[in-house]
Amino acid sequence: MNAPMDVVFNLFHGNMIDYFIQKNENKDYLDKLEFIGFKTGQSIVERITKDTPKFKNELDIIKFICKEFWTQIYHKQVDNLKTNHQGIYVIQDNDFMFFSKVSKTKKFTEECVKFLSLPCGLLRGALSQLGINCIVTAEIENLPICKFQIELQKS
Amino acid sequence: MNAPMDVVFNLFHGNMIDYFIQKNENKDYLDKLEFIGFKTGQSIVERITKDTPKFKNELDIIKFICKEFWTQIYHKQVDNLKTNHQGIYVIQDNDFMFFSKVSKTKKFTEECVKFLSLPCGLLRGALSQLGINCIVTAEIENLPICKFQIELQKS
Repeated sequence: MNAPMDVVFNLFHGNMIDYFIQKNENKDYLDKLEFIGFKTGQSIVERITKDTPKFKNELDIIKFICKEFWTQIYHKQVDNLKTNHQGIYVIQDNDFMFFSKVSKTKKFTEECVKFLSLPCGLLRGALSQLGINCIVTAEIENLPICKFQIELQKS
Repeated sequence: MNAPMDVVFNLFHGNMIDYFIQKNENKDYLDKLEFIGFKTGQSIVERITKDTPKFKNELDIIKFICKEFWTQIYHKQVDNLKTNHQGIYVIQDNDFMFFSKVSKTKKFTEECVKFLSLPCGLLRGALSQLGINCIVTAEIENLPICKFQIELQKS
């Protein structure tokens, strides 16, 4: 967490999740967060691509996500990008902002899973705004490392 | 909006409100936002007062809110503080972050009212963490000017 606003955002996000859990919203709140993230990802990309020339191809878009989009939210680029060249991309962030101050125990890894809906939604929304329909899932291997898998959907 | 994270936070907040409205949550979502803001305000103050000496009195606390707390979230101090010396304080921010990029028409002023629950909650939570129970209300006179009234509650 580099700047105060990140702290505020993280606390807000955490308190929102606590609130939903407290109100017994089961797993529905994760869908809500994913959807709000999706809309927010779209809006962010709409803003930051205003003066960007058109993208050449799919890989060009993914690279934009890994650099500009990631930096806009997380103040850093992703640490690794892999693809199977068949429509699956895996983005790795070795110090994912939402987890960088979190204790590294197994209990917390389980706890952190619920913090993944929002960033998955942000990523899916960003790609959707750039014309890419996809399914985004995330997994935590060892905190604070986080991997996001993008599975492109044929339109 | 000074830094990218403010933009992200503002977009997230706006999309969250849109989502709640879309789902016909009536006015309940404003209470939800106020409550999540309250918890977040508490957490922020808990963090930023770790190494702060104890406050001398009520006015000392209010001044801390106007300077340190406000700066933490909105990157500036408040522009004006008034009190009737009978438990009511009015804080004025002449360029309130949530509204600084908003069109200044009457329609938008009405629209903006729903963006006040979160900052009211943040403020009430911050004061609660410092031992002050209060009611916080807000009003927009002319965008982007925003006034917050703090009415202390006898405990």
